[in-house]
Amino acid sequence: MEQLNKLIEHIVNRVNINLREPLVDVGPFVRGLIPRDSFSLYYAFYSITTTHPLKFHFRHSSVGGTYFLGKCEVDHSILYKSDIRGDELKRKGSIVNCNGKDIKLRDDEIISIRDSYLMKTLVHNKSHDPENLETFKIANTVSLNYANIHGTSLEGCFLEPFASLDLSVCHDCAVGAFSYVQAGELSHKRIKPGRVWVKSPGLFEFKYHFPEEILPDYIRMENHRPVGKLIDFFEDKKEDFVPIYSAVQTENTIEAEGAAVSPYAVIKGVCSVDKNVLVAQRSYIDNSKLGPGSNAQENCYIINSTYEGYDVTAHGGKVIYSNLGKNIFVGFNSFVNGKEDARIKIGSNSIVMPHTIIDAQEPLDIPENCIVWGYITKQEDLELHSLSLEEFSSIKGQFQLGDMKFEGLGAKFVDAFRHRIAHILEENGAFYNGTEETKGHAQKTQDISFNILQPYPEGILKGLYPELAINPLEPSDL
Amino acid sequence: MEQLNKLIEHIVNRVNINLREPLVDVGPFVRGLIPRDSFSLYYAFYSITTTHPLKFHFRHSSVGGTYFLGKCEVDHSILYKSDIRGDELKRKGSIVNCNGKDIKLRDDEIISIRDSYLMKTLVHNKSHDPENLETFKIANTVSLNYANIHGTSLEGCFLEPFASLDLSVCHDCAVGAFSYVQAGELSHKRIKPGRVWVKSPGLFEFKYHFPEEILPDYIRMENHRPVGKLIDFFEDKKEDFVPIYSAVQTENTIEAEGAAVSPYAVIKGVCSVDKNVLVAQRSYIDNSKLGPGSNAQENCYIINSTYEGYDVTAHGGKVIYSNLGKNIFVGFNSFVNGKEDARIKIGSNSIVMPHTIIDAQEPLDIPENCIVWGYITKQEDLELHSLSLEEFSSIKGQFQLGDMKFEGLGAKFVDAFRHRIAHILEENGAFYNGTEETKGHAQKTQDISFNILQPYPEGILKGLYPELAINPLEPSDL
Repeated sequence: MEQLNKLIEHIVNRVNINLREPLVDVGPFVRGLIPRDSFSLYYAFYSITTTHPLKFHFRHSSVGGTYFLGKCEVDHSILYKSDIRGDELKRKGSIVNCNGKDIKLRDDEIISIRDSYLMKTLVHNKSHDPENLETFKIANTVSLNYANIHGTSLEGCFLEPFASLDLSVCHDCAVGAFSYVQAGELSHKRIKPGRVWVKSPGLFEFKYHFPEEILPDYIRMENHRPVGKLIDFFEDKKEDFVPIYSAVQTENTIEAEGAAVSPYAVIKGVCSVDKNVLVAQRSYIDNSKLGPGSNAQENCYIINSTYEGYDVTAHGGKVIYSNLGKNIFVGFNSFVNGKEDARIKIGSNSIVMPHTIIDAQEPLDIPENCIVWGYITKQEDLELHSLSLEEFSSIKGQFQLGDMKFEGLGAKFVDAFRHRIAHILEENGAFYNGTEETKGHAQKTQDISFNILQPYPEGILKGLYPELAINPLEPSDL
Repeated sequence: MEQLNKLIEHIVNRVNINLREPLVDVGPFVRGLIPRDSFSLYYAFYSITTTHPLKFHFRHSSVGGTYFLGKCEVDHSILYKSDIRGDELKRKGSIVNCNGKDIKLRDDEIISIRDSYLMKTLVHNKSHDPENLETFKIANTVSLNYANIHGTSLEGCFLEPFASLDLSVCHDCAVGAFSYVQAGELSHKRIKPGRVWVKSPGLFEFKYHFPEEILPDYIRMENHRPVGKLIDFFEDKKEDFVPIYSAVQTENTIEAEGAAVSPYAVIKGVCSVDKNVLVAQRSYIDNSKLGPGSNAQENCYIINSTYEGYDVTAHGGKVIYSNLGKNIFVGFNSFVNGKEDARIKIGSNSIVMPHTIIDAQEPLDIPENCIVWGYITKQEDLELHSLSLEEFSSIKGQFQLGDMKFEGLGAKFVDAFRHRIAHILEENGAFYNGTEETKGHAQKTQDISFNILQPYPEGILKGLYPELAINPLEPSDL
């Protein structure tokens, strides 16, 4: 255990050096955060499929409870119950066009995590850093519960719980709880909690801030630990994962053609999935029905709800007592919290922005073809927190509605979302028709096996893992 | 799957080249032996403890269901539900005295398995090859169900089911089913089934042959597959292992001070263990009581029996409806098969030779301080199949009793056994008194974790494992 403590201090020092400006000390957030015995209690998973390039190397790290898929390197780091998903890593020889220049990848892209501490964090690699095409890098970074690192290279960053960094490159930034940032390159910034910020330089900028009297109810830091309704929500459901993680090979209890239901997802009550559905590991489906092509990504909770089809619930999305039409996007970490007597109905083709909280105090009806954001509890709140996609597309220049500010071309903003939703559906295999080209994540992970990795059980190395490397077979051996 | 087939043919060719003399074709024995789906169904285990040097490297191999402990390398091989136990590997810097010369080990000893096919085979590394001190080598070898490779370097060998090679060095040998060979260096030999042969050049030679009309009842090859009562015995109990191997972290259901009960052992009925007991993985204890310091090694079955204490059941020993006094040794693969109405009682300090079959047709009473061998079903059979240790010690020169022939010094033979039993008890921690020096295998494996390794799940590589390496942490990282 002594060595694990030394490693934590090493990471704290590395990260704090990067965060001299903005001045942040990550020490109190990570020291004692994970109960010491938990480091040796949980085991890590490395996925083996026939379609993802294999390469896994870690040394001097603790990786308990973490999933890895694709090419990954981990050095001097603590990853705890995180997901490191490398299914969209770029391949050697592929061409990336950036500012009109074609750049050829000289090696397979690899996720590299160094001197970092990621706690229950999701890393998905669809990377957008044209300067480092072969490495998806996370270094000198601390990221806390349910943070989301999505296609974002990070150096010297601190992410509070439920923070999402999306399609960005960040250097020396501190991002507050429940903030969503998709803003190209950022450095030496401090992002306040509850900020939703989408910026495409030269095209548009969307800004929303959760009211300061509201957010702490859902998530706040108290003595450097996260508390609030969002944390309570997870705590209540933790127990349901226990039996799943106690079995080496668990069985999917539901299935359909072209669908993939992870053996490491919780399936409770009466559930059904239709063709080409993806239910990822660590997602939670209770008494719900997922229509064709729908997906429940990592850390999603779908409870007492129905999805008509081709509905996307992005990482960390929670949908309770809701009925969704077709083609609906529920963004990262959104909390669509209907009640038994206050269901939420969402019409087809609508977009729930990332980090939206819809906490129904009465039945809610969100129309078709609209976009919603912010904090909504009553039907009347929609007036200041939604627009039809048509209205949004017509925005040019500056626009304000309630706490939301927009500047630029609404049509480009809506197009960007539509394009991304289509990409997600395609990548996840929603349109699979039996051909190789239409295969997505759902079909590619139907046949998967897991290497289950455990740490030193006792002594000064307790909780650390031996150095471990997994490589594909040499072609010359075959 | 195609690649796995290619690997099997590769091994067959390598082994057959070695077995030109004696002429053996191992192909029919291994082709189709393991159902093809089983290769991808089971997972392998690499043990991590704080006391065993770590190093694990395999490539181009299938290692389903196999356990590894200590430093091991596996190349181009198929190991299936085997145990590769490196807990007595010699360490760098230690001195081995051979023929009066002190030889210093320049590296840690490592188990190296190449171009071999081991099926349900136990490998224990207490090696005795002074010519290759740093490598415990198994190459170009096929070994079948429940064979026992014990401290024996092998090149180009074929072991039939239940064959034991003990403390020897063998080159290009074929060893028949249920043969026990402890005979120094052997090359280009064919050992017939049911031969028990213990030879210490210049000191003694013990020889016994099972009657040809008896052995096939217990084990014989039919169409290159093993059949008989010994195989049936295992088949009946296979089901009991299923729940154990379906859980990542199973719980020991019985425990005692200084004792280690593997979570991968079957414990059924009412069982108890006393202090410093070792129950190894893949052993099976049903409705039995193990007194202090006793051990049940890998593939042991102890059913409806009691052990007073410091009793050793060597690898593959089976003891049913028996009552053992103190300090009793039941050798490799012995079948001490009492019945509910025909119990077997064994007096203290007695030795059941390796590969003894005691299949009681009436209650049997084996006295204290004696040695038994061969095939025994009735009390009167003891006359030709046992001697008191005192009588045995007094043998000088040639001696014959029934089918047993002995030549040399009986006292040396008895001493060698006594010495070995003491060594086994000590190594397994039977005399542990809380001090570091008295720790043995039981205490050293109380804190153990397992890396659980799975193969490619589908496609042409199905059943093969990616290349995998585990190494200890670099001291400079700590």
